[in-house]
Amino acid sequence: MTAACPGHRREHDLLGDRDIPADAYWGVHTLRATENFPVTGTAISAYPHLINALAAVKEAAARANQDLGLLAPEKADAIAAACREIREQGLLHDQFVVDVIQGGAGTSTNMNANEVIANRALEILGRAKGDYGSLHPNEDVNLGQSTNDVYPTAVKVATVIAVRELLEAMGLLRETFAAKAEEFRDVLKMGRTQLQDAVPMTLGQEFSAYAVMLEEDQSRLAEAALLIHEINLGATAIGTGLNAPEGYAEAARRHLAALTGLPLVTAANLVEATQDCGAFVHLSGVLKRIAVKLSKSCNDLRLLSSGPRAGLGEINLPPVQAGSSIMPGKVNPVIPEVVNQVAFEVIGNDVTITMAAEAGQLQLNAFEPIILHSLSESIPHLGAACRTLADRCVAGITANTEALRATVENSIGLVTALNPHIGYTAATTIAQEALATGRGVAELVLERGLLPADRLADLLRPEVLAGQ
Amino acid sequence: MTAACPGHRREHDLLGDRDIPADAYWGVHTLRATENFPVTGTAISAYPHLINALAAVKEAAARANQDLGLLAPEKADAIAAACREIREQGLLHDQFVVDVIQGGAGTSTNMNANEVIANRALEILGRAKGDYGSLHPNEDVNLGQSTNDVYPTAVKVATVIAVRELLEAMGLLRETFAAKAEEFRDVLKMGRTQLQDAVPMTLGQEFSAYAVMLEEDQSRLAEAALLIHEINLGATAIGTGLNAPEGYAEAARRHLAALTGLPLVTAANLVEATQDCGAFVHLSGVLKRIAVKLSKSCNDLRLLSSGPRAGLGEINLPPVQAGSSIMPGKVNPVIPEVVNQVAFEVIGNDVTITMAAEAGQLQLNAFEPIILHSLSESIPHLGAACRTLADRCVAGITANTEALRATVENSIGLVTALNPHIGYTAATTIAQEALATGRGVAELVLERGLLPADRLADLLRPEVLAGQ
Amino acid sequence: MTAACPGHRREHDLLGDRDIPADAYWGVHTLRATENFPVTGTAISAYPHLINALAAVKEAAARANQDLGLLAPEKADAIAAACREIREQGLLHDQFVVDVIQGGAGTSTNMNANEVIANRALEILGRAKGDYGSLHPNEDVNLGQSTNDVYPTAVKVATVIAVRELLEAMGLLRETFAAKAEEFRDVLKMGRTQLQDAVPMTLGQEFSAYAVMLEEDQSRLAEAALLIHEINLGATAIGTGLNAPEGYAEAARRHLAALTGLPLVTAANLVEATQDCGAFVHLSGVLKRIAVKLSKSCNDLRLLSSGPRAGLGEINLPPVQAGSSIMPGKVNPVIPEVVNQVAFEVIGNDVTITMAAEAGQLQLNAFEPIILHSLSESIPHLGAACRTLADRCVAGITANTEALRATVENSIGLVTALNPHIGYTAATTIAQEALATGRGVAELVLERGLLPADRLADLLRPEVLAGQ
Amino acid sequence: MTAACPGHRREHDLLGDRDIPADAYWGVHTLRATENFPVTGTAISAYPHLINALAAVKEAAARANQDLGLLAPEKADAIAAACREIREQGLLHDQFVVDVIQGGAGTSTNMNANEVIANRALEILGRAKGDYGSLHPNEDVNLGQSTNDVYPTAVKVATVIAVRELLEAMGLLRETFAAKAEEFRDVLKMGRTQLQDAVPMTLGQEFSAYAVMLEEDQSRLAEAALLIHEINLGATAIGTGLNAPEGYAEAARRHLAALTGLPLVTAANLVEATQDCGAFVHLSGVLKRIAVKLSKSCNDLRLLSSGPRAGLGEINLPPVQAGSSIMPGKVNPVIPEVVNQVAFEVIGNDVTITMAAEAGQLQLNAFEPIILHSLSESIPHLGAACRTLADRCVAGITANTEALRATVENSIGLVTALNPHIGYTAATTIAQEALATGRGVAELVLERGLLPADRLADLLRPEVLAGQ
Repeated sequence: MTAACPGHRREHDLLGDRDIPADAYWGVHTLRATENFPVTGTAISAYPHLINALAAVKEAAARANQDLGLLAPEKADAIAAACREIREQGLLHDQFVVDVIQGGAGTSTNMNANEVIANRALEILGRAKGDYGSLHPNEDVNLGQSTNDVYPTAVKVATVIAVRELLEAMGLLRETFAAKAEEFRDVLKMGRTQLQDAVPMTLGQEFSAYAVMLEEDQSRLAEAALLIHEINLGATAIGTGLNAPEGYAEAARRHLAALTGLPLVTAANLVEATQDCGAFVHLSGVLKRIAVKLSKSCNDLRLLSSGPRAGLGEINLPPVQAGSSIMPGKVNPVIPEVVNQVAFEVIGNDVTITMAAEAGQLQLNAFEPIILHSLSESIPHLGAACRTLADRCVAGITANTEALRATVENSIGLVTALNPHIGYTAATTIAQEALATGRGVAELVLERGLLPADRLADLLRPEVLAGQ
Repeated sequence: MTAACPGHRREHDLLGDRDIPADAYWGVHTLRATENFPVTGTAISAYPHLINALAAVKEAAARANQDLGLLAPEKADAIAAACREIREQGLLHDQFVVDVIQGGAGTSTNMNANEVIANRALEILGRAKGDYGSLHPNEDVNLGQSTNDVYPTAVKVATVIAVRELLEAMGLLRETFAAKAEEFRDVLKMGRTQLQDAVPMTLGQEFSAYAVMLEEDQSRLAEAALLIHEINLGATAIGTGLNAPEGYAEAARRHLAALTGLPLVTAANLVEATQDCGAFVHLSGVLKRIAVKLSKSCNDLRLLSSGPRAGLGEINLPPVQAGSSIMPGKVNPVIPEVVNQVAFEVIGNDVTITMAAEAGQLQLNAFEPIILHSLSESIPHLGAACRTLADRCVAGITANTEALRATVENSIGLVTALNPHIGYTAATTIAQEALATGRGVAELVLERGLLPADRLADLLRPEVLAGQ
Repeated sequence: MTAACPGHRREHDLLGDRDIPADAYWGVHTLRATENFPVTGTAISAYPHLINALAAVKEAAARANQDLGLLAPEKADAIAAACREIREQGLLHDQFVVDVIQGGAGTSTNMNANEVIANRALEILGRAKGDYGSLHPNEDVNLGQSTNDVYPTAVKVATVIAVRELLEAMGLLRETFAAKAEEFRDVLKMGRTQLQDAVPMTLGQEFSAYAVMLEEDQSRLAEAALLIHEINLGATAIGTGLNAPEGYAEAARRHLAALTGLPLVTAANLVEATQDCGAFVHLSGVLKRIAVKLSKSCNDLRLLSSGPRAGLGEINLPPVQAGSSIMPGKVNPVIPEVVNQVAFEVIGNDVTITMAAEAGQLQLNAFEPIILHSLSESIPHLGAACRTLADRCVAGITANTEALRATVENSIGLVTALNPHIGYTAATTIAQEALATGRGVAELVLERGLLPADRLADLLRPEVLAGQ
Repeated sequence: MTAACPGHRREHDLLGDRDIPADAYWGVHTLRATENFPVTGTAISAYPHLINALAAVKEAAARANQDLGLLAPEKADAIAAACREIREQGLLHDQFVVDVIQGGAGTSTNMNANEVIANRALEILGRAKGDYGSLHPNEDVNLGQSTNDVYPTAVKVATVIAVRELLEAMGLLRETFAAKAEEFRDVLKMGRTQLQDAVPMTLGQEFSAYAVMLEEDQSRLAEAALLIHEINLGATAIGTGLNAPEGYAEAARRHLAALTGLPLVTAANLVEATQDCGAFVHLSGVLKRIAVKLSKSCNDLRLLSSGPRAGLGEINLPPVQAGSSIMPGKVNPVIPEVVNQVAFEVIGNDVTITMAAEAGQLQLNAFEPIILHSLSESIPHLGAACRTLADRCVAGITANTEALRATVENSIGLVTALNPHIGYTAATTIAQEALATGRGVAELVLERGLLPADRLADLLRPEVLAGQ
């Protein structure tokens, strides 16, 4: 056996020896993974919430092992110190180098964490990186653990944090819509069904609906997030808890809950919990629901602000950039458009997650990395979409109040309000004549003597029409 | 104006006159719709829950209008009698003839219901069909209503009933899996991760996971079903309640709850409720989750029963039909296969529902008919899948107990259990040698003197290995 | 062994004896399947093209076997006669009773065909139904065949026929759009990008784009259909051709091509062809493409016809039914709406087909029945959508020519045409001032002396603006 | 108007003034976009093919404008020089800073290119960055162009290049499978349908199928790529070619074809071409087809290599990394697993692309950026998946030849080969007895005297069974 190349240390795994750059905190398992998965070029360091969650899990496991007398206190302290550097100071994140799309059910991510934490802990202990006889990535950092419980647990912790940020962004958008609903509470306009003029309403009612939709979505998202507080730490390889001693699962959960501040619970059936991606599928379904409704709301905003002269022209979105490289003065609804696109991405990601979940076999789902990857796009992108929509679009929307009122006064849809008083059949005749002649409904009703003028005026009062 | 053709009555709408077969309970609006939507050839009578729900809504509305003094008691009685014939006796369902895929946001379905109920009520009143001066489809049966509140309300009521049936079928399957888990509780076998031999477990643990998955899915489905108890009856066209008098919404809800026995509530914001399909998207997402996990379970059953000689051969599915037109004696896992296919259909339907929901515009989603259509496939198909899987497959599964035990004894995965006692590195060496030589793990451990024989035997006891 | 129940005959399979109604042409294998797959309630008789294609395949196989001396001429004649009754006279379709969603890779469908054809052939031979000693469903009708070559071949033949009908419907719609494009060739209007006023064009150009889209889609669909002319008849169980004698594959192909009039070819690699669903995935992808563009076109039609007073009001769709049960005189774009919904269904079905194709394992895809089912919805529904869109909507569209011209004259977008002559920066200033003041672009350009009046008039000529 | 901040230059757009870092090549439009779209944190510089294609389009446009006398030669030269630095030397890519998910139909990407090229060209001309009076991003670099023709054209050029790389990677994988098919041509094994033992075949036939699948997919991909050689340069804003002078479209196409070496053609109907995303939907559909089949092939590889002792154990995948952090010696099929996950991503992206395409309205699809983004993931990820699968998995696969042969000899499926000689009914009986007793088919056939020994031996010769 030859010496390691200059500037390197030599590590060994079941495939043989490999030289690792001396300053790398990752080791041979990580090296293999980077060679095996050259897919996206994006490393898992792109998921800071995951890196932090992994550090929390490793610290919790070390403390649980210490509690049970399986890990020497000085080792546990060193591991915990390394984990805190990662989580609290954001150090070493650049050492998490395996690709975001990877085979192996997250093993490479777990191995990467084990190696980085072990090598940093070794330094803290005054040892050299690679001196695994003193502290071992698998036998110490991974003690009592398997990728199959560590990885899903870390993914869940990371996802809970990400969801909380999304909930906050949704709250901002909801409040912005609600403020506009209040601002526009007296702006009368025509409501539309199937893009055809229907009956009157207020612009405030229209914006209020967007706020309520978001509120409901927040509730559903918060419920779905509860499901991912259920972890399987202590399950080890397949949920039977092999190699995890009595008391370990509960101790590790308790430490992890304390470290993260999250009300984590251990799944009642760990075999089931280890193979089941149902909570991720559920969460993704709720994200899709949010996407669907955000996209619908943005479609409406783009439609209502169409124009400036040949469109509906009901509202004005604040201009945020020049709209065209060729058409001077054109301003486009670019903020709603970017939200639409995030929504389409989230909906596509839901299909990816669905397929990955369905492809799980027997005691494990090997495809959690793509589930994590998809969620790690969908959740923050939705959050960014909500924030830019709130700040750069909705907050600055103005209404063309006079034009809106004119469409109501001019509308054939007014006749619906007279339906109970003159009957569906007579009302249909009035509507048809109004359409054919371009004349007004009120004028025709009076001309035919169907209602006295004062009664008619009363029925067509705005607050009556809008049901406010 | 000429007379109607022989055997017909003449009806009129805004497009002109049409002759309707004298014995038809449907009228001119329905006729137009059948001509406009010749898409699938399947009529809405294929949705009995919907027809019944429409009848319930119409009866509730009639009673609410009667309470408010807007509809004469004899009219209300006749309408209610017609509705009860439909709901309780299953009569007139064949008169619901518009296509399941239809434009118009459900208007044609509502018009079809108005016409059938009006004509039957006219008969009950001793009048001729078509004598709309005496009782009118729109002015009486549809009084205070719009398609835009009636249709979603009826779809929700119908869907709640359908979901209850699905929950029952899931319960049957769950119990069947649970019974097998109990039956197989002592059958030791190798667990697998990533299709590679992992560590021991029991077949009972494996089947228990399927039961637990279903139990969780039942909870999620029951939660999702709660969301569709929120109705918008009284919203009329766009949620402003135009033409629905004070008190109508609450009275109609109360009558409908009484008629259906469902704890229905009226949405707080009717403008939002009238345009929002979020609850359907949510429900469909939960159905997709169920489909994903059913499909995964069936994939496992097919895999575990592969053989009879060149497969895993761990379990035997009961033969239910000859498997091949060419291969004598071949028996195939046809029941899990049909469940897989239902799952794929449900997952595809979720995309359809997603797109339909996203396409809603302004105050209404015009695409609820395809949402209803998709749900009306997904829910009962899943139910049928659960029932046939329970009765014709899972209930009759047997285990090849001896062969399973042999795979454990022969397994390299046993070495994992020794990991805490001989270390990951030594264990890796043992595993590699076992693989290369075909020898057993225990034999190699003893040969190398890594553990004393009695200690080794203790570590490899089945109940220890399976963590039971 | 007891006698069969009265009015029944007794049949036997590997599971034992079953009594079959004496007048049923189907037999014991079909009976088992109907019991095993109670999923949708829809029988495969709902696919007449498939039933006919199965009959063609069976006739072709019988003739090939006769050519090779493996089947007695009188048996072959009887089988062929039975097949022709099915294909040419539409007889016995009601005997194809297994559910459209079924496990078993189509075995039950093939068995159903074998039994019906055998029993009818027995009658033709003067024998009793069930006298399988004289002519056997498996040993004679299925001779040299397997479900795994018969079923995909029949599905392909059926699908080719269905696609031809769709191509015809698309042709009708394309011609209808093209005729409108010609009719509207001089109708000047504002083009829009991102729903904002852009630059002028003609309504003819707008409709012409829809016609061209369809033309391209027709080309792609015809190409995709070519792929499904490649069949695997002769492959038998897994593509090795076991039990299919030398010469059989070619003889069967030749007979089938002659019977159907289709230029069928036998796949070069039958092992690959037997397991691969690529051609169906490809076809479904093209159907999705068609759906996407039809849906987009219908979205446009609904948008352009929005109003009548508070919308864009550029075109009028012909009214085809009353639009509302509550809003008198309302007419909705119900035909485009139904097309949208078919499109959403087709897009969802594509996901179903994708999952089913991906789930194939080793030498066979067991999930072809759901692929067939999905295609059997998507193709004819798209055809129906095209036809109703052409006949009941596009053909009757009218333009609001004067209003359209006014939007051009009034438009700020005119300034783009001046861009090369006054510069992007000056043009931007003009545009901003026009927007702020409500004044016209031409007026402002003249006022600022940026262009002489005659030059300006020349630049704003309609034919220049629309690039015609 | 105050001076710019130190180290900045001041630029102006329709929203007012902004200070730009003096060393930035991008300008005010780019700055606005980075503020408006803080979605993913990934800049468009992540798409080098797109940046290069934009530079090619801008150079081609400049030369076309020069040819037509609209752009001074020194300006055209400077623009071309800047473009060549980008394309040939890879310079300035880091100046393309707008987010990959952006509103505005690609306008920000086009503006970013205009600004970077203009500022670099200004430097080449000896001018200061920002001296737009000398050479203007919109009036010179974008002369005769619109985002709506430049952007789709650049996306198409970039995509063609990316597809070529994918085709090459697929070719590598196909050859690797084909070499293995040759290597394994005499390895007899049991074929399986529906995971049940079917009839014999060779491992070579099995691998040959994977090679043929890829070959077909290559053909389909090459065909789909042809469609995106059709560009709309010269269409300007909506396809009417407003502001693009006579001859410009053809000149620009000619220059672009020369610069890229691609046989580009100009679409016949530019209005259609400008709004239609059909070619992208089509391409994505073909990518999905490739993904489906790659995923199926990898599912098979994982299944065939399951074990080492409790699985099928037919083939061995080369170990490429340790499989488990807890299970010593475990080796997992991580390479096929990563390919599966890429496939799921591609399938999800297809849904995203479908929704984005369907959402196009009137004369433009504003959602091309998310289409580009999705394709820019799907295409290179599939390429990476093919390469790592070929090099790190398939090339090193070995077969367990003896075990495979034993499964054939031991198989009940052999009885199928006797079907034509002893009949389906007798064969079924033999199969059932073999299954029940564990005895061999040949033994039972001889015992019952159904065939003489020499005839039986002849029928069971490997080359006969495998149909080779």
